[in-house]
Amino acid sequence: MKFDTIIHNGIIVTVNPDFEIIDDGIICVKDGIIDRIITKKPDQSGTESKEVIDAKGGIIMPGLINTHTHLPMTLFRGLADDLPLLVWLNRHIFPAEATHINSETVFYGSLLACAEMLLSGTTTCCDGYFHEHDVARAVHRSGIRAVLAQGVIDFPAPGVPDPVKNIETAVQFAEQWQAVSPLITPSIFCHSPYTCSDKTLMAAKNESSKRNLLLQIHVAETKTELEQIQTGHNKTPVEYLDSLDFLDERTLLAHAIWLYDEDIDIVQNRESTISVTTESEMKLASGIAPISKFLKAGLTVGLGTDSTASNNNLDMFQEMDMTAKLHKVNQLDPTVMDAKTVIKLATIEGAKAIGLGSITGSLEAGKQADIIILDTNAPHLTPLYHPESHIVYAAQGPDVKDVLVAGEVLVRDRKLLSLDAEDIMAKANEIGKIILK
Amino acid sequence: MKFDTIIHNGIIVTVNPDFEIIDDGIICVKDGIIDRIITKKPDQSGTESKEVIDAKGGIIMPGLINTHTHLPMTLFRGLADDLPLLVWLNRHIFPAEATHINSETVFYGSLLACAEMLLSGTTTCCDGYFHEHDVARAVHRSGIRAVLAQGVIDFPAPGVPDPVKNIETAVQFAEQWQAVSPLITPSIFCHSPYTCSDKTLMAAKNESSKRNLLLQIHVAETKTELEQIQTGHNKTPVEYLDSLDFLDERTLLAHAIWLYDEDIDIVQNRESTISVTTESEMKLASGIAPISKFLKAGLTVGLGTDSTASNNNLDMFQEMDMTAKLHKVNQLDPTVMDAKTVIKLATIEGAKAIGLGSITGSLEAGKQADIIILDTNAPHLTPLYHPESHIVYAAQGPDVKDVLVAGEVLVRDRKLLSLDAEDIMAKANEIGKIILK
Repeated sequence: MKFDTIIHNGIIVTVNPDFEIIDDGIICVKDGIIDRIITKKPDQSGTESKEVIDAKGGIIMPGLINTHTHLPMTLFRGLADDLPLLVWLNRHIFPAEATHINSETVFYGSLLACAEMLLSGTTTCCDGYFHEHDVARAVHRSGIRAVLAQGVIDFPAPGVPDPVKNIETAVQFAEQWQAVSPLITPSIFCHSPYTCSDKTLMAAKNESSKRNLLLQIHVAETKTELEQIQTGHNKTPVEYLDSLDFLDERTLLAHAIWLYDEDIDIVQNRESTISVTTESEMKLASGIAPISKFLKAGLTVGLGTDSTASNNNLDMFQEMDMTAKLHKVNQLDPTVMDAKTVIKLATIEGAKAIGLGSITGSLEAGKQADIIILDTNAPHLTPLYHPESHIVYAAQGPDVKDVLVAGEVLVRDRKLLSLDAEDIMAKANEIGKIILK
Repeated sequence: MKFDTIIHNGIIVTVNPDFEIIDDGIICVKDGIIDRIITKKPDQSGTESKEVIDAKGGIIMPGLINTHTHLPMTLFRGLADDLPLLVWLNRHIFPAEATHINSETVFYGSLLACAEMLLSGTTTCCDGYFHEHDVARAVHRSGIRAVLAQGVIDFPAPGVPDPVKNIETAVQFAEQWQAVSPLITPSIFCHSPYTCSDKTLMAAKNESSKRNLLLQIHVAETKTELEQIQTGHNKTPVEYLDSLDFLDERTLLAHAIWLYDEDIDIVQNRESTISVTTESEMKLASGIAPISKFLKAGLTVGLGTDSTASNNNLDMFQEMDMTAKLHKVNQLDPTVMDAKTVIKLATIEGAKAIGLGSITGSLEAGKQADIIILDTNAPHLTPLYHPESHIVYAAQGPDVKDVLVAGEVLVRDRKLLSLDAEDIMAKANEIGKIILK
């Protein structure tokens, strides 16, 4: 056979540099790679392939890139909501983590998250948590693509009771998973500039530089954090990190809400990237990241869901919709964050933000076959004038019909093939019952 | 048989005055009415009934109330987005309406909307448009509950080329549909205080009072409207309407974004009600309605989707999610608009806002059996700690499994029973092709 899989009979939203939309093309996949995208002609419809996927007139697009997650926390979905941040953290989330997060729960929580992400069209995620080895085991089993980092924090953490070992544990994780699978890229995740000392931050930076690892950090997430760092260091969080030489093109800043224009200049100069998690930031009332300013400054920005403890799902379609709408109303300008811009954030720009822009995030020959198909044969997606509009403003995770990662069909006709979803849900419900007690 | 339908094996979120949640109860329906809700006991599980619906552990809740729609505009879903308001209206929406809105397109557009609403758990909508007779025909066929109004505007409109006849046409519609079906409640819809003269507004008010009809109007939707009315009348839009005696407990104010505290006092004194359409208001960048102030003042507030031309779907679950999150981040307070409050807006408060609070909007004995069941057996709804949290923050329209209106099962296992969805979509696609030209 010439190809492993061909996908046809759909509208291909390539998200290539010209944002080309091909009305009735064929994507040919071989050895996990997009071999070519051809325009449909009668004599090519019989293109030889082991597997043929009929998009049935739907939308074929790059798999979505979730640039900021804490996968095991799916087990805390809806455990506590609508509370002041410190009450939520100190009385609900931290105690639940201290009591219930272990190697087994991390594994099953991550499997649950992978099932949810794949079924809603996410093909790549960028995670940071504890017991990350067990996250990686789950991710590996699911077949999703991921950047994974063991968390670093200067407090006792699940699996790392002695914070003196936080860097060492993170490096061990990175070394262990460096060459296990082409789908898994190790990374290091420092929790924040207020929970990691300058010494810890610099050590993490040093290890990331030595090993060429993406270095993730929560930064300027709340006004309280901004004020705390300003008081302690007489610098903004971004200025403070920059003073430690923490920022370069391998640094991913999650949230980045409370940034001054001068901070944006620093991020631009250092070529660091940003992950905006709109829904979580809204739900926790953290603030609104100045995303239009980021884009105007030419920063690389991706979208993420954050954890389901503060979202409460991992649906990147909702994330796109809410991101577009929030910034329109916040700036009282309906032209900002148009559909194409938002799709790019959720695909190619997100891929760039986590260091994978050359291999995923768009449908182009030579790239990994990370592809999703939306079933548009539904009243809420009818009629269809402009696919980019439907993707952002009308579609939802459950509209995803088929999902391929590196050419492997992981979801087919809304059925998850790589994992036993029923079994995972049963296990998650068991753990949930214990947590609720 | 003792009952027509019983629903069992689910978590019943009643939205009764105590917001009672019954973990494993049985809802017994007879003659379209909720006869009783009983707590499950072994000897009652065999309760005699013609039909038995197994909720399979899911969430059983009142059908959602969409308090502001323009159903035929589903045909314009995604036709134009991300444009300045006047460009969007004058170059896209108004020309499309002038050219393509007629008796037939209104009928099919409304069928499409009804299909979408029912499939996503909406059991009641409140509509205002033109050719409303054809909206009513579609609504009647679908089996959904609706408050329907022929639009009144002092310009030539589809089906009403001579605006002199706008009131007469609206009254004719109301008279014609007054007694056709217990599911259809006629109403009158004045477009706005800037597109209807004082004479028109007063005539509409007079007819609404005489016939006891809900009187709908868009009001204070944009800052431009506020300024225009202030310049023309030296009053805010609300003050202006009040000066015409337009406001009373039968008046529904749609949007109500640009209200001063004094306007809220007026609305409170007149006992008028409000429909907030969060997603549409965000997408059009109209502004953020002061919903917390409304609730503090004791106003009756419902949620609505507005039309799919500015949303771009009719999913009330998304509407709840976005409403909760928008106000949290806007007020930098995660405790505002908690899940229970938001559910009430989308159910019982919405029902009250459109005059149907005594018959629908909650699951209580004696009320109409307008009931939906959410399938929670999905990764994105696992685990389940608090059903109210899942309803607002994690669930989506496609999670709706079964829908009853007045006891009739209109959706069963995600299949629409009252309409032929495939046929409607085919027709809508045909019309869409003509519109796109």
